[in-house]
Amino acid sequence: MSRGERARRDQRSQDLERIALVVSYDGSSFEGWQTQPGGKTVQDCLESALSRIADQRPQTVCAGRTDSGVHAERQVVHFDVDCKRPLSAWVRGVNTHLPPAIAVRHAATVDPDFHARYGALRRSYRYLLLSAPTREPLLSGRVGWTHRALDRFAIGDAAGVLIGEHDFSTFRSAQCQARSPIRRIDSISVEPLNEDRVGGRDFPGIRSGDAQLLQIRIVGNAFLHHMVRNIVGALVMVGAGQRPVRWLSDVLRARDRRLSAPTFDAAGLFLEGVEYDRRFALPSWPQSLHSGPTV
Amino acid sequence: MSRGERARRDQRSQDLERIALVVSYDGSSFEGWQTQPGGKTVQDCLESALSRIADQRPQTVCAGRTDSGVHAERQVVHFDVDCKRPLSAWVRGVNTHLPPAIAVRHAATVDPDFHARYGALRRSYRYLLLSAPTREPLLSGRVGWTHRALDRFAIGDAAGVLIGEHDFSTFRSAQCQARSPIRRIDSISVEPLNEDRVGGRDFPGIRSGDAQLLQIRIVGNAFLHHMVRNIVGALVMVGAGQRPVRWLSDVLRARDRRLSAPTFDAAGLFLEGVEYDRRFALPSWPQSLHSGPTV
Repeated sequence: MSRGERARRDQRSQDLERIALVVSYDGSSFEGWQTQPGGKTVQDCLESALSRIADQRPQTVCAGRTDSGVHAERQVVHFDVDCKRPLSAWVRGVNTHLPPAIAVRHAATVDPDFHARYGALRRSYRYLLLSAPTREPLLSGRVGWTHRALDRFAIGDAAGVLIGEHDFSTFRSAQCQARSPIRRIDSISVEPLNEDRVGGRDFPGIRSGDAQLLQIRIVGNAFLHHMVRNIVGALVMVGAGQRPVRWLSDVLRARDRRLSAPTFDAAGLFLEGVEYDRRFALPSWPQSLHSGPTV
Repeated sequence: MSRGERARRDQRSQDLERIALVVSYDGSSFEGWQTQPGGKTVQDCLESALSRIADQRPQTVCAGRTDSGVHAERQVVHFDVDCKRPLSAWVRGVNTHLPPAIAVRHAATVDPDFHARYGALRRSYRYLLLSAPTREPLLSGRVGWTHRALDRFAIGDAAGVLIGEHDFSTFRSAQCQARSPIRRIDSISVEPLNEDRVGGRDFPGIRSGDAQLLQIRIVGNAFLHHMVRNIVGALVMVGAGQRPVRWLSDVLRARDRRLSAPTFDAAGLFLEGVEYDRRFALPSWPQSLHSGPTV
């Protein structure tokens, strides 16, 4: 490389700006995050919209590569550009080129050492679980559904055993490409959501007390492929009384996917937020999780 | 007609049973209620599922022919069949042949003089209106959105003038086929919904107080084509301060569609329930509307 070439390269890399975005999407109509030849993924739509604002098509890196049907409230994405744009162009400008099911909520210029995936300290996922005699069309695509009645206290009791650092092979899909099955779960909470979310306290066909919308929130450093949905599948079996509470610790220790429950529906899963070092000052972590330990 | 033919006809009409259903659907993926050659309507899906249970394809009549994108919590439908089926077949059986976005909630055998459309005493519609700086992908298809801040008290003040029996030509679409533009509105309420429906009190990009989810509920005897969405369009202009509160009575009296606001998005509109004579005992009217006058 000649001195002139090196100078130009250094100049270019100085001109490069790293941008971080906080992005929300309804995953129902996409084939997951990751780019595919068909182009029907969130990454494809986002990069196509970004290229309308930038001079080139930026390559994006995300914090959590969500599967087909999985939603995100605060997905974090970074990319590099060598063009100067006001931050509002990366929010309002990009949004005008996105379908209604995706929106950029926030944009920031970040240090070049910021990395959406490798810099993430913790992730929070929420799973919305509807227990009701019949399906709920007005929640279709946004909850996982079981017709069985669920004992949420049994679910909470069983979930406790997952907290801490464990080998999560039992809850890992066969397609998982992670090198290690070891992950750390910091907290799991199970709480009933406001009844009126189910569509009205007095919904016909649902006798009082028959319908229950539960939120299972899992916070951890990182997650294996299908890990949350596989955990939810096992928790539903416990909540429905098909397995005893202690069964969860047995299957966790067995480190054998075949002994656990089927993967639960993608529709109920939301990437709620991603935590980074405070110096990046990204609004990508729910305020409610900032203060003190989660229950 | 021979005596034998007449006897067979009388026998058939005696054998006919009239069934009423309460049906919920997410209208996002349908081209409205009413059957169309393409077959992508709620009526087409429902009749096709009913024909899997009945010997024939029943012709259905509904209480409110919702437009493309409009949802229903308690749509009421009736049809006649000459086959005997347990009521559970018209709920659980039919549901197995319906897409996830439609569900039958309740079935009942009703008197032959029951008519889903002409027998309806009152209808209740809810409109969910999101006021927020950016779109909310996780509510896309289920709310109408404006980026303008809304004064809900101004909306409530303006709406009052619509209560009572009026000529609603101002809020009637050009395609409306009703003979008379006279309708009776019994109540209009405007209330803020639980903040956490917006996707979390601490949603990034939405400063505290910037996002507001309003529910506008309109109860009346019957509605003209686009009437609720046209009323919402006008109320949004008042709420955003683009028109004064008294403007609504001016445009109502003018009976001229061109003087009012554009039709608001179908996505926020829900047919909440339909009221019939008590003797039919249908669970198609929200409990909360039964007791006393609505505010």
